[in-house]
Amino acid sequence: MTDRTKFTLTEDRIPTHWVNLLPDLPGEPLPPLSPATMEPAGPDDLTPIFPMEIIGQEVSMEPEVEVPDAVRDAYKLWRPTPLYRAHRLERALDTPAHIYYKYEGVSPAGSHKPNSAVAQAHANGRAGVKRLVTETGAGQWGSALAMACAQFGLECMVYMVGASYDQKPYRRAMMESWGATVIRSPSDTTEAGRGQASHPTGSLGIAISEAVEVAAGDTDANYALGSVLNHVCLHQTVIGQEAIAQLEMAGEEPDVVVGCVGGGSNFAGLSFPFVRRVLRGEAKTRFLAAEPAACPTLTRGAYRYDFGDTVGLTPLMPMYTLGHDFVPPPVHAGGLRYHGDSPMLCGLVKNGLVEARAYRQNETFAAALEFARTEAIIPGPEPAHAIRAVIEEAEDAKRAGEERVILLGLSGHGHFDMSAYESYLAGELQDPEFSEADMEAALERLPDAPTIA
Amino acid sequence: MTDRTKFTLTEDRIPTHWVNLLPDLPGEPLPPLSPATMEPAGPDDLTPIFPMEIIGQEVSMEPEVEVPDAVRDAYKLWRPTPLYRAHRLERALDTPAHIYYKYEGVSPAGSHKPNSAVAQAHANGRAGVKRLVTETGAGQWGSALAMACAQFGLECMVYMVGASYDQKPYRRAMMESWGATVIRSPSDTTEAGRGQASHPTGSLGIAISEAVEVAAGDTDANYALGSVLNHVCLHQTVIGQEAIAQLEMAGEEPDVVVGCVGGGSNFAGLSFPFVRRVLRGEAKTRFLAAEPAACPTLTRGAYRYDFGDTVGLTPLMPMYTLGHDFVPPPVHAGGLRYHGDSPMLCGLVKNGLVEARAYRQNETFAAALEFARTEAIIPGPEPAHAIRAVIEEAEDAKRAGEERVILLGLSGHGHFDMSAYESYLAGELQDPEFSEADMEAALERLPDAPTIA
Repeated sequence: MTDRTKFTLTEDRIPTHWVNLLPDLPGEPLPPLSPATMEPAGPDDLTPIFPMEIIGQEVSMEPEVEVPDAVRDAYKLWRPTPLYRAHRLERALDTPAHIYYKYEGVSPAGSHKPNSAVAQAHANGRAGVKRLVTETGAGQWGSALAMACAQFGLECMVYMVGASYDQKPYRRAMMESWGATVIRSPSDTTEAGRGQASHPTGSLGIAISEAVEVAAGDTDANYALGSVLNHVCLHQTVIGQEAIAQLEMAGEEPDVVVGCVGGGSNFAGLSFPFVRRVLRGEAKTRFLAAEPAACPTLTRGAYRYDFGDTVGLTPLMPMYTLGHDFVPPPVHAGGLRYHGDSPMLCGLVKNGLVEARAYRQNETFAAALEFARTEAIIPGPEPAHAIRAVIEEAEDAKRAGEERVILLGLSGHGHFDMSAYESYLAGELQDPEFSEADMEAALERLPDAPTIA
Repeated sequence: MTDRTKFTLTEDRIPTHWVNLLPDLPGEPLPPLSPATMEPAGPDDLTPIFPMEIIGQEVSMEPEVEVPDAVRDAYKLWRPTPLYRAHRLERALDTPAHIYYKYEGVSPAGSHKPNSAVAQAHANGRAGVKRLVTETGAGQWGSALAMACAQFGLECMVYMVGASYDQKPYRRAMMESWGATVIRSPSDTTEAGRGQASHPTGSLGIAISEAVEVAAGDTDANYALGSVLNHVCLHQTVIGQEAIAQLEMAGEEPDVVVGCVGGGSNFAGLSFPFVRRVLRGEAKTRFLAAEPAACPTLTRGAYRYDFGDTVGLTPLMPMYTLGHDFVPPPVHAGGLRYHGDSPMLCGLVKNGLVEARAYRQNETFAAALEFARTEAIIPGPEPAHAIRAVIEEAEDAKRAGEERVILLGLSGHGHFDMSAYESYLAGELQDPEFSEADMEAALERLPDAPTIA
């Protein structure tokens, strides 16, 4: 009997193409809208902050986009990532389900984020850009971009949400170790930041406003976003493609694919290659998106056009939103504290292809500890939400007496989140929830944009 | 041109045997001595704290020891570990040297330590032991054993050096997440601890005394040591065996193998399979051991019998020692702060097969940052010493115009050491050094044991 099965791919199996789900989606894609005119935004609205290669990827209708050689080469630093069968978790749950997890925490920055960071750093470097500006909340994306910029010889400037800047000095030291400049947001370096001085702890939306403002005003600089947009989801599809190859090695077909959702790129990266097979009638797979009850975008949000940032500098996108100025409670899953979600993913939820569930903080940490004690890896607080959902599925499979095959996206480790585990073990974790009043307030402040048919 | 080359082995290449260097070493092995009689210690001196399987491994003269199936299965959680060619570091150094690094930081605990922890937890579990007691300084070994005990269903109790307990709450939270009980040392739970209450910050030697005392007095409990002893070095040889297979894939033969040394198990694990080839006349390889100038055991210590712990509960071992009650200055490479070293490794240094060099803290962090910015992985402060030595070798190869092949043991990541990077980046790191007065004081307090011929 074996307790651990790992499916390893060699470097030659790193995907040569990214999977673009856009052409397979039913209907015409809903365009982003210019914040100035509320008319569909074109490439020209994006050239001040993105290189043409990225803009092309954002709107491409090709079903596959080639991964540049230099990006595929950089992927070798941590890809292909391993797929494991969670025998010991299955046994602890006494479930007939077969649980597999795809582990992205082996990247140097500790999460899936570098999959897009190296692609964006490379595209900008090739376009002659000298500096990338971005924002970070918990620090995962900022770390990934700092690492990627060091790999491709770019400067990196990160606006870090004030509360995180104060609470997570080690994430900051990590970014600085890779050579990045880290600025506490809101800062006095931008108009957007100065206007938000009354919110000293900051928010992701404010930090995005600051980064976009700097990038738009500096011809040597561009902006880089770590989730939400089509091109970020595209870059992440290396995850799902590898998982398909690894599940083939295991001789299994997943019944349900489970991931956590913040801006949606982790979930998209794992699921989109599987979703395409469903859309093409090649498979019947369920998809399950796990989010925090404190920021329940997909389960409670309004499906509307909204800004990506707090101040309203970005194009408006069609998505489930809790309102662009909503500041989620300070749950430890910082990567899931975003008011909106990837428009592509939101469309799949709207169409019923993806089911969303929201979980409270304590039940996700209980699930994370069960995982750590059986499977040894200490998960980040974000994938802990997905683990909670997997345990529900496994318990349901037990009740149904089914050998259900469950694929979990384990997007990153929790090495920089041990204070959260400490609080949980001490019984001091809060369970904040989104309220009806929060939603009503958000709906009142949604921008005056066209409704979605 | 490729910037990154990784050599991946599949699970079936996890070594089936550990390499035991003992029978290949010249001369008779020097026995440990009983602390009570100063006569050679036999298995009976060890049965109160170790299971027979481990004692057998400690004294085995078989050149290979089979890895139990369950241990090999647990290794699948992170093994085989990757070997990389450091193209980008080579280019930054403008050296003709070929630099390879074997990366052990992919284990769930983040270092090479789990290679022995799972072997020890399994052997004790098989012997019916319910609880393992150990000590930890920086937290690497305590984390590894906590993880391993969770895998094999044992309780785990860790005496953590007081200064680390206070400064590294996240390492403690990691051990507790895996279910371990962590006790600040010196504690009032042991006689050894109570006797050292005047040293409130503790030391590794004191923590060992406490753990050994508890294990010796509890029939359900055993002790587990994370380095120094023969069986720990044995378990670690999976590293070097995999590296041999991976360098074969690369078509290279190493000219020099470089690792850091605390108690010696990391260095032994990487180098012993290569050392055996040299001892058998099959290869000509140099070996380079890097240690901190603040705790320069191999470069400055006396080659004498000394205790493994502060109080004098353990057998005496023949080794380079700075004195069993020496408390090294608080450099961040906590894993290298030990007064002695593996007797097997010390013998190789004595015989001139292994060269040792000592480095100061700031130069090791400078090397670590150069590595992080080129190769993306943020190294732990311990392997930063080895990286410093590798850079010296690469610069020397440049002067000599040689395509020198250098193999670096990258024993772990620095995710729990970012405060040290923060201090370095702020220019606030100290450079403590061992003094002549320290050595004189140590020599005066060495136990009255037979000298080594």
